[in-house]
Amino acid sequence: MKIGASYYPEVLPENDWDKDLKTGREVGLNVLRCGEFAWSALFSPEGKATMGWVRRFLDTAATNGYEVVWCTPSATPPPYLFDRWPDLNATSIDGLVMPTGIRRHYCPSHPGYLELCAENAQRLAQEFGAHPAIHGWQVDNEIAGDGFTCWCDRCGAAFQTWLEKRYGTLDHLNAAWQTGVWSQVYTRWQQIRVPLLFRGSQAPALKLAWRRFRSDNWLNFYRNQADALRAGGARNVTTNFYNLAWDLPFDRWDWRPHLDAMGVSNYQDQALVSNAFELAVLQGPQPGEKPLWVLEQKAGQQASQNFLPDDLGRLERHIAICAEAGAEYGVYWHMRQHAAGCEMEHGAVLRHDGRATRIARAIGNAIKGSAAKTANHAPAERLLVFSFNQFWANETRPPMGGAYDYRVEIETTWFDAAQQAFGKIRIGNYGDAANGRSLILAPFFQLNEPGAEAAFKSALNGGATLITTVDFLRLDNENNVRRIAPLAGMAGWCEIPDLELYQLKPGTTVKGGIAGQAVAGGTFWAIPMTSGTPSARYREIGSGQCEGCTGPMALEFKVGPGRVIVALTALDTAGVLAFLRNL
Amino acid sequence: MKIGASYYPEVLPENDWDKDLKTGREVGLNVLRCGEFAWSALFSPEGKATMGWVRRFLDTAATNGYEVVWCTPSATPPPYLFDRWPDLNATSIDGLVMPTGIRRHYCPSHPGYLELCAENAQRLAQEFGAHPAIHGWQVDNEIAGDGFTCWCDRCGAAFQTWLEKRYGTLDHLNAAWQTGVWSQVYTRWQQIRVPLLFRGSQAPALKLAWRRFRSDNWLNFYRNQADALRAGGARNVTTNFYNLAWDLPFDRWDWRPHLDAMGVSNYQDQALVSNAFELAVLQGPQPGEKPLWVLEQKAGQQASQNFLPDDLGRLERHIAICAEAGAEYGVYWHMRQHAAGCEMEHGAVLRHDGRATRIARAIGNAIKGSAAKTANHAPAERLLVFSFNQFWANETRPPMGGAYDYRVEIETTWFDAAQQAFGKIRIGNYGDAANGRSLILAPFFQLNEPGAEAAFKSALNGGATLITTVDFLRLDNENNVRRIAPLAGMAGWCEIPDLELYQLKPGTTVKGGIAGQAVAGGTFWAIPMTSGTPSARYREIGSGQCEGCTGPMALEFKVGPGRVIVALTALDTAGVLAFLRNL
Amino acid sequence: MKIGASYYPEVLPENDWDKDLKTGREVGLNVLRCGEFAWSALFSPEGKATMGWVRRFLDTAATNGYEVVWCTPSATPPPYLFDRWPDLNATSIDGLVMPTGIRRHYCPSHPGYLELCAENAQRLAQEFGAHPAIHGWQVDNEIAGDGFTCWCDRCGAAFQTWLEKRYGTLDHLNAAWQTGVWSQVYTRWQQIRVPLLFRGSQAPALKLAWRRFRSDNWLNFYRNQADALRAGGARNVTTNFYNLAWDLPFDRWDWRPHLDAMGVSNYQDQALVSNAFELAVLQGPQPGEKPLWVLEQKAGQQASQNFLPDDLGRLERHIAICAEAGAEYGVYWHMRQHAAGCEMEHGAVLRHDGRATRIARAIGNAIKGSAAKTANHAPAERLLVFSFNQFWANETRPPMGGAYDYRVEIETTWFDAAQQAFGKIRIGNYGDAANGRSLILAPFFQLNEPGAEAAFKSALNGGATLITTVDFLRLDNENNVRRIAPLAGMAGWCEIPDLELYQLKPGTTVKGGIAGQAVAGGTFWAIPMTSGTPSARYREIGSGQCEGCTGPMALEFKVGPGRVIVALTALDTAGVLAFLRNL
Repeated sequence: MKIGASYYPEVLPENDWDKDLKTGREVGLNVLRCGEFAWSALFSPEGKATMGWVRRFLDTAATNGYEVVWCTPSATPPPYLFDRWPDLNATSIDGLVMPTGIRRHYCPSHPGYLELCAENAQRLAQEFGAHPAIHGWQVDNEIAGDGFTCWCDRCGAAFQTWLEKRYGTLDHLNAAWQTGVWSQVYTRWQQIRVPLLFRGSQAPALKLAWRRFRSDNWLNFYRNQADALRAGGARNVTTNFYNLAWDLPFDRWDWRPHLDAMGVSNYQDQALVSNAFELAVLQGPQPGEKPLWVLEQKAGQQASQNFLPDDLGRLERHIAICAEAGAEYGVYWHMRQHAAGCEMEHGAVLRHDGRATRIARAIGNAIKGSAAKTANHAPAERLLVFSFNQFWANETRPPMGGAYDYRVEIETTWFDAAQQAFGKIRIGNYGDAANGRSLILAPFFQLNEPGAEAAFKSALNGGATLITTVDFLRLDNENNVRRIAPLAGMAGWCEIPDLELYQLKPGTTVKGGIAGQAVAGGTFWAIPMTSGTPSARYREIGSGQCEGCTGPMALEFKVGPGRVIVALTALDTAGVLAFLRNL
Repeated sequence: MKIGASYYPEVLPENDWDKDLKTGREVGLNVLRCGEFAWSALFSPEGKATMGWVRRFLDTAATNGYEVVWCTPSATPPPYLFDRWPDLNATSIDGLVMPTGIRRHYCPSHPGYLELCAENAQRLAQEFGAHPAIHGWQVDNEIAGDGFTCWCDRCGAAFQTWLEKRYGTLDHLNAAWQTGVWSQVYTRWQQIRVPLLFRGSQAPALKLAWRRFRSDNWLNFYRNQADALRAGGARNVTTNFYNLAWDLPFDRWDWRPHLDAMGVSNYQDQALVSNAFELAVLQGPQPGEKPLWVLEQKAGQQASQNFLPDDLGRLERHIAICAEAGAEYGVYWHMRQHAAGCEMEHGAVLRHDGRATRIARAIGNAIKGSAAKTANHAPAERLLVFSFNQFWANETRPPMGGAYDYRVEIETTWFDAAQQAFGKIRIGNYGDAANGRSLILAPFFQLNEPGAEAAFKSALNGGATLITTVDFLRLDNENNVRRIAPLAGMAGWCEIPDLELYQLKPGTTVKGGIAGQAVAGGTFWAIPMTSGTPSARYREIGSGQCEGCTGPMALEFKVGPGRVIVALTALDTAGVLAFLRNL
Repeated sequence: MKIGASYYPEVLPENDWDKDLKTGREVGLNVLRCGEFAWSALFSPEGKATMGWVRRFLDTAATNGYEVVWCTPSATPPPYLFDRWPDLNATSIDGLVMPTGIRRHYCPSHPGYLELCAENAQRLAQEFGAHPAIHGWQVDNEIAGDGFTCWCDRCGAAFQTWLEKRYGTLDHLNAAWQTGVWSQVYTRWQQIRVPLLFRGSQAPALKLAWRRFRSDNWLNFYRNQADALRAGGARNVTTNFYNLAWDLPFDRWDWRPHLDAMGVSNYQDQALVSNAFELAVLQGPQPGEKPLWVLEQKAGQQASQNFLPDDLGRLERHIAICAEAGAEYGVYWHMRQHAAGCEMEHGAVLRHDGRATRIARAIGNAIKGSAAKTANHAPAERLLVFSFNQFWANETRPPMGGAYDYRVEIETTWFDAAQQAFGKIRIGNYGDAANGRSLILAPFFQLNEPGAEAAFKSALNGGATLITTVDFLRLDNENNVRRIAPLAGMAGWCEIPDLELYQLKPGTTVKGGIAGQAVAGGTFWAIPMTSGTPSARYREIGSGQCEGCTGPMALEFKVGPGRVIVALTALDTAGVLAFLRNL
């Protein structure tokens, strides 16, 4: 793994470049990420390239032995562009126009802006794509990060076009969304408006569609520049995904084919399991298939250079996780503290005056400590399903029982338990289930996504064990509840018992045991209602008690050569672990 | 009492109707409420009636022995109407335009919408008014509920017209509102703007007027459809008032004459005393005068079908309260869980798949348990005054002492204590005081409403006991403080002692006793300042102590053959009870 | 000191005037402040003066022996002006138009409004400037108080003009602000927009400039009327600054030359040290130079007349502070409780009905108690530097370490400790340091304001002791971090050791001792990194420990005949006191 840092030559004295880069080398750095906010320095208002300094800087970088990832500067359009296009400002979720002076405040559907960004990207690639220091390219910066997206009428029109392409006719859309509820039947595409989160009462189907559109619309924004970069001769084109823990704006499984490397911002503000989960999602079902680039990670505390109390050991543990995941690059943000702008007190490898302090020493130690680490990929036999559509559906729907966060459940309960049980586990989308796995974990898979049933069935036909939860396939693919009994989504596979499905109020838990282990569940619980011997049709696993009711913690069904195990409640980590250790 | 549920045939497969209705009958239901969100299904965008399904459904209902309350669908205008009238969207309290895709998002002053709603109502009545299943009609749904009202300039213009009618001239208005304070003297009606709650510093007089206008403007909205329904041949026309605990948008005493039955949503999320208070206000000063329809009550938990922990016994206790109040209908929301829309996880009698679960069984038990209950009306001799104007005035005024909520005080302290002391008590407006009562409770009656003094005086002349608080008639009818001493509003009735009126900071209480009972007071406290023997002019009741001060808890004045008892502090329930038991 | 109250003859019955003023005299009052909201009563919509009542009132005041401060009424333009100028409404910080019906809701850059306000002010002065009751004039009321300022495009244009005057060229501005960060390079003045606080991510340099502009723009607003008043013959012209604890909208050192008396609202909601600090800032570096007018102080609790529990002793303690500060006037808000408007329950000397209650008696006692107090000014030798620019810079910048409030630190730690150590201390701007002081306290002086270095150096050359903190001169004058090592701003004065500067997370403290006293520090801490003997270059003071690190609490440097003592952490009051007592 090569370790580096972001560097901002465009706002630093040219005299300092060589000295800063040499200091970085002494710390152990040999990668640089540059240019993501440098529009003002790269192009004049008239559109003339003013890139002489870039070549001088790249030469300095090459001389000092650095590999450089250069970025397109579209995250920070200069003020004169808002002068030229008063409709370039994004509209916020509450319908107000975003101000200038910030970043990511442009509308991603603006045709003039898209064209200019592509043109600039191509010129950058043509100019520097062949420079020996350049090893890759990043489009924009943390696209749609911090919840920044646009809710303007132009995006609304793009949404309508997207809907028309997806549903064909309004009749199909009205039927799929069940718009008869509350008389929302649409008679013109133009009536379907951006669902400003003004009220919580808009339809879950509309909100999910908007989430899906946004992912596609931003993918279009990314591809517009990625294609231009490649047309200009660039290789290794990617972007830096924003931390999963902060937002899930894109379906990364859709984006993956369009990225030459898997880039990410992976800040260590989070628990280590979050850092590991982020990388496991990035690796996907075939670790090693694509280079893994951690393009931002924290140098010291987020908001400053040196902090007391601080846990410098985290720097080493984080780098170790990256190395085990087989990351090619680990890039700190950033090399030297900014003197201006809202991030001027954020931490960096070097202080404002370029001095290496104890942060630099700790980073140096982390680099040395990770040098011997090699990639350690999970075997292909086990898969944890993580679906962005399930997250969006859950987020945009009223909660069944206590509210829960799909990502948090998958990450901190199922992924964490699977790591404890198996060391490592691969993560993929549901379509990846059907490729010779022996164990598939697909908890909280409520939305009946296209082909999901077939993919799971195919795995079962191959003898696999599928583990899920009692809300399995409870919804159609539009975020509406199916008019079926609990678990009846599996009715074609096996005989299902009558189940009474309880919501658990926040704070209420099912307490019980699995294989002698004390476990607990929350959010919901289902209890078989049918009397008689269950053994003919299913096997009960564990037992629980909650507010005077008793019942099993899970059910196991034989399906052909395979089996399905259904957790009847949202188990805690101990519960999932007891489960996985007693398959 | 007949028990039923809301049912949405327009979004359920026609094949399910008969089965669902039969299941409902097995549970014990025989009333249905339908159609309040069915606009899309009832009329085509061109305005053609598409009502064939309604007749088929009503026939099914009749066959299965149900009585039906049908609703006008004006709560959910379809998207194409916002296409036709871009100015139909309501404006929110912060001045933003409300989005489509929700309900109650129309402007109630829109002339085209009013006309169309009336036309549709009349057509519905003409078509189905004579159908044997139809027993009544509901206009719109929870009008202005959830705080939904419109703050647009069109409503502002209607407000100005209303003001001109009420005050005649700007000179009268300026004098009444005392607009000289902060130079708010108006010189054109158009200068009086909707008091967007942008700042808390607008005049209490303006805010109270806006509250009064809103009640009248919404009454106009209701009557527009009610008249049309009746013109079409409908009988038993009403609407479902929103829970008092959630908002008090209307002066229900003004609305009462225009309702053939008293309809209400009475959700059991609240304390049982709130459910009972709601019904007592609905019954009014003459219980039995009009049918009482509880048109929405909760089936299971608000947001879901089955909950653990749950108190199914509440279902029975709530139904018992309704039966004792003499309700004719008790209608659950709703029969079968929605598959789509933001309410798709809300509870219902039947599950999404139409299955009756333990909720249905508990409702069945509640129905059986209430079958033998008969109406139990309070006697006419005692009256608790509840004035919507007092609530609005208190809400729109800066607090005198600790903030309090007029409804909460009346309901949870005075109504609750009166129920404990007398079993039941009637509730009415102040004008109802003058009809041969022996006891009138009118606490926190600050606003000097027109005729209030005369009504109370007339009761006193008839020998009644009037119980109030020391803030009695402290304000004029415009929400301004009168330049008089505490209690001087009664100066014409009896001699008033000098009182020093203290505000009590939140958390500060007057501790004392009445007739040997330990009681407490809050919010304010008044202490007689005059020395000498009080007995000539008034009698002191109880004694209290607070922060080193001492004084009585109440004063009693003889007024002709009657008497006035004034609580000097906002008593707690024990205090009011000690009071009422020692008259 | 003369004590008085605000009185509102324009909204009180003329018959009450004489009685109220006589009652006030009995309490001990002999000053009145009038007219600040009386526009409606002073001028007709056509602009005609309607001031007959003013003369009658002033005669009554004179007869009763009152001195009167009359105010211009520009805080409450009447509704008809918003009719005439629909663009008069201010724009709020979130970009929405402020409603009418409040106060301070005008745009201070509106040319028509400025002209009218000046004209009215001049007419008032011409009419009453020579009346024997009139002793002074107040412009507007608590200008820009409650955070009220305007964020409209007209103010934006004025901001651009102000910027052009300050920076000359865009090249200078771009360089000074370092707009290369995030590509904010401006190419037209019009691109520099009002920094609506929509996002926290706008540049600190932009935000500080906006703060500076606002102070100047409001000074222009004040001077427009002050000049007109003087042109009309008025003497003793001032305004009432809003409490420092609530906002610091103006650089009072810039405003000072334009005020004939130093006026202030000094509410006693705050700690007594805040009341004293407010007055010390108002007195400035030369106490007694200008009359001190406390134009608003609280009569009873802010929101009501009488409160239980209440601490009436505070009334006396506050008046004593004013008297010691040498205040000429102490004016209560207000004489008699309002009957209308949002302040109708606020406390006053007299009750709504004009009755003097225990509040009046307590005020009477306070007046008697302060009669013998004489002004007690601090000696010139010691100065505490308080810079409004430092406050604004700190407020508009991301925090270095735990967030702190410059005013709070100066007031509650340094000013309080200085009072304890020296009895009294003068407060001034940094420019006042260079005038023969022996001790200058300038903690948290981060911004390198123009001439600051020279002023401090000149004091050191005179043998003074300068006490500051380790963040001294860390920033340039534009709110950007200088690319220098900690304390290197003093590098020209003495040799500086290498320091490692730590941020302390909120709740983390440096515990240590100075001269045997236990003290503590927060926010940041710096530790010398260099080995060897420090004594050659600096002296270490005290010692601290934090999270395993140890180091001194302060350093002392000899600079010519003077010395600089640098606190290495944000000391608590005990720390500053131990410091000051061991110089």
